[in-house]
Amino acid sequence: MSTPTTAVIGAGISGLTSGKMLCDYGVPYTCFESSDRVGGNWAFGNPNGHSSAYRSLHIDTSKHRLSFKDYPMPESYPDFPHHTQIKEYLDGYTDAFGLREHIEFRNGVRHARRLPEGGWELDLEDGSTRRFDFLVVANGHHWDPRFPDFPGTFTGEIIHSHHYVDPRTPLDFAGKRILVVGLGNSAADIAVELSSKALQTEVTLSTRSSAWIVPKYIAGRPADKFYRTLPYIPLSWQRKVVQLGQPLLSGRPERYGLPTPNHRFFEAHPTQSVELPLRLGSGDITPKPDIARLDDRTVHFTDGTSAEFDVIVHATGYNITFPFFDPEFISAPDNRIGLYKRIFLPGIPDLAFAGFAQATPTLFPFVECQARLIAAYVIGRYALPPVEEMERVIVDDERRYTGHMLDRPRHTQQLDYFAYEFDIRTRELPAGLARATARGRA
Amino acid sequence: MSTPTTAVIGAGISGLTSGKMLCDYGVPYTCFESSDRVGGNWAFGNPNGHSSAYRSLHIDTSKHRLSFKDYPMPESYPDFPHHTQIKEYLDGYTDAFGLREHIEFRNGVRHARRLPEGGWELDLEDGSTRRFDFLVVANGHHWDPRFPDFPGTFTGEIIHSHHYVDPRTPLDFAGKRILVVGLGNSAADIAVELSSKALQTEVTLSTRSSAWIVPKYIAGRPADKFYRTLPYIPLSWQRKVVQLGQPLLSGRPERYGLPTPNHRFFEAHPTQSVELPLRLGSGDITPKPDIARLDDRTVHFTDGTSAEFDVIVHATGYNITFPFFDPEFISAPDNRIGLYKRIFLPGIPDLAFAGFAQATPTLFPFVECQARLIAAYVIGRYALPPVEEMERVIVDDERRYTGHMLDRPRHTQQLDYFAYEFDIRTRELPAGLARATARGRA
Repeated sequence: MSTPTTAVIGAGISGLTSGKMLCDYGVPYTCFESSDRVGGNWAFGNPNGHSSAYRSLHIDTSKHRLSFKDYPMPESYPDFPHHTQIKEYLDGYTDAFGLREHIEFRNGVRHARRLPEGGWELDLEDGSTRRFDFLVVANGHHWDPRFPDFPGTFTGEIIHSHHYVDPRTPLDFAGKRILVVGLGNSAADIAVELSSKALQTEVTLSTRSSAWIVPKYIAGRPADKFYRTLPYIPLSWQRKVVQLGQPLLSGRPERYGLPTPNHRFFEAHPTQSVELPLRLGSGDITPKPDIARLDDRTVHFTDGTSAEFDVIVHATGYNITFPFFDPEFISAPDNRIGLYKRIFLPGIPDLAFAGFAQATPTLFPFVECQARLIAAYVIGRYALPPVEEMERVIVDDERRYTGHMLDRPRHTQQLDYFAYEFDIRTRELPAGLARATARGRA
Repeated sequence: MSTPTTAVIGAGISGLTSGKMLCDYGVPYTCFESSDRVGGNWAFGNPNGHSSAYRSLHIDTSKHRLSFKDYPMPESYPDFPHHTQIKEYLDGYTDAFGLREHIEFRNGVRHARRLPEGGWELDLEDGSTRRFDFLVVANGHHWDPRFPDFPGTFTGEIIHSHHYVDPRTPLDFAGKRILVVGLGNSAADIAVELSSKALQTEVTLSTRSSAWIVPKYIAGRPADKFYRTLPYIPLSWQRKVVQLGQPLLSGRPERYGLPTPNHRFFEAHPTQSVELPLRLGSGDITPKPDIARLDDRTVHFTDGTSAEFDVIVHATGYNITFPFFDPEFISAPDNRIGLYKRIFLPGIPDLAFAGFAQATPTLFPFVECQARLIAAYVIGRYALPPVEEMERVIVDDERRYTGHMLDRPRHTQQLDYFAYEFDIRTRELPAGLARATARGRA
């Protein structure tokens, strides 16, 4: 049996790890990257516009948790590396495994058509059309800004956190009255950076769902060193234990003036920030609930208060977008797409998705784990179950990972990495191998 | 017996609280202030040059601990007020107690001479000379920058934290290689502010003694809410208990690459910063030990490493300076001056010092406590013990408050506010009243 020719869309962490595993198994593959460099989201200032990194961004996961299993982070790296260091690490990974020769830079996929008999025809940016047996979609889900929809019109400046670079770029924030919308990690980081009294700004932060804030360090060690779910205990029980310990970690958000979260601790991704509680407690950031309506320069909040602003920064997340698929063929409305093990779309066996989850604590080892399964599938060492079983498992897994969570686009992709990795390694890969072997004998 | 006419030098927190207590007791007094405003150190940009506040400065003590007992901070204030709010609070205090009419603004004391028969002759900035029976020195000890003395010469720019305003003032720090010297609160704040990657700087922090870092918040409450020493238990025992609990509060400084402190936890003033450990752990600030020597743009450290810098910021504390006294009459070499209860110089009964301590957790209620004793003394409701007893008590108190500490100019003034206040209220004031009554009868 010949190995299928494979195309990978994107050379960010998902595309790189997928390529590395395909290389390991000797699968001929080509990676199509619209930019002139690898790294995707981690290539600050990426000319293809797909990086959301701001100048001061440090990753919110410690290097110990972040390392790929087969390519540890340099010992010299700090606990929480800067984006430039993540980019260096990804360049090192690319070169260490000889991935660069497989990548066609500045040649993104314009359109991907599935052929009636299976296989794919790709229209590329260089004007050519090429055929592949198998397609890996790894174009990322942190590049297409999601804007909230409020009644009324705001006549000041509006930007999305995706375009935020630093306090002087893309606009000079000094002296401005700024409203940051959202309470994820980007919202917290940007509100903190812009609220320094040195900039003489006035910063307000508006949140609909509120959030629990957790520190990056606990007793001098990266907080995520203490975090690990266990495979043999139901996740719902483990969430209970974490909820009991929460008061010791950090106070209730109301202590800092934030609204009461509409979810319990750990029922949605917590926001990691040591600085946000301090800035709220110092009066540098004014907390507000959700926006009720916009009126010229005035923003009305749901608690009946209002204030004038010069700029709104929407740190309200991203859409999952596949610009190369016809929307009626494959799309993710409200960020929902039912994928078996977050990889396979039932009924389309020559297609895999890599990296489409919001894995806790981090995406890096998660995409590596997915890449392992994808490559095993491509060479026939893993077979999928029947479509009906796939669809049943999708529903079960979604209940397991996100059943307790808010029904919001931001949270559809939530996933516990430790539980996922354990499932793939100890159950799914062996079961898929058994299925493949059985079919080979049949 | 007539009340003595009294002069107060300075209208900062020490001069204001002293004036308020003198007012309470109906003592005629005049406050001489070289600036055009009250607030001293807390009057950001004070034209007399005596404010060390930088633009982003928030006080490191929570408002709950900071409030004067007889003038609570507004409920609306955040946990850690900004310097502008402290200034407003002090203006409110000044007006609430009618102190402004006692203050001669822009009329500092040039020279203070003690007359042979007692009493004082003051040469003032307006050219006049005035006589007073009693003098209160409240000119502060955070305005005369202390520079360390290293071998060699640095040819880049050198500033003291006293003159630091913001990342663009007094010089544009953006893009610069910056060395911050010291590890007190100012050093930590300034290193954090300048090390934001948004400024594209490289920040190194050099410390000789190192320090223990404690957070401003514990479990969502201002950390100093949990801190209080108890009067009936020896301070040395209480320090032991705090030392045992330290690992839970924050890790060892070595975890973040700082040198091992040359003192145990709580043996010297800890540095309060939630951001410094994060910035060290993110690689934004490079920690270094003490400076060995300077050579052009290069700084050599005691661990044998060296690096080039554009700017050195000395956040190395302040000298206690009395520019209006002849140095051979009264001075504080190496910040040492033996004062009975940190107020009275043995042998000079018509002189009091207010605010000359580094009180933990804060100076505010401490100066209020001192002012109470000073005013009681001025009206004869408190008498001093004999000079020999005063000198013995000075030695005993110094051992009690600083005996366990480093023998450094920075630490000579260290004092536990709770122990001090308890001592003044329950022992010293009643004993002084008994002495005054006994003398009145004699």
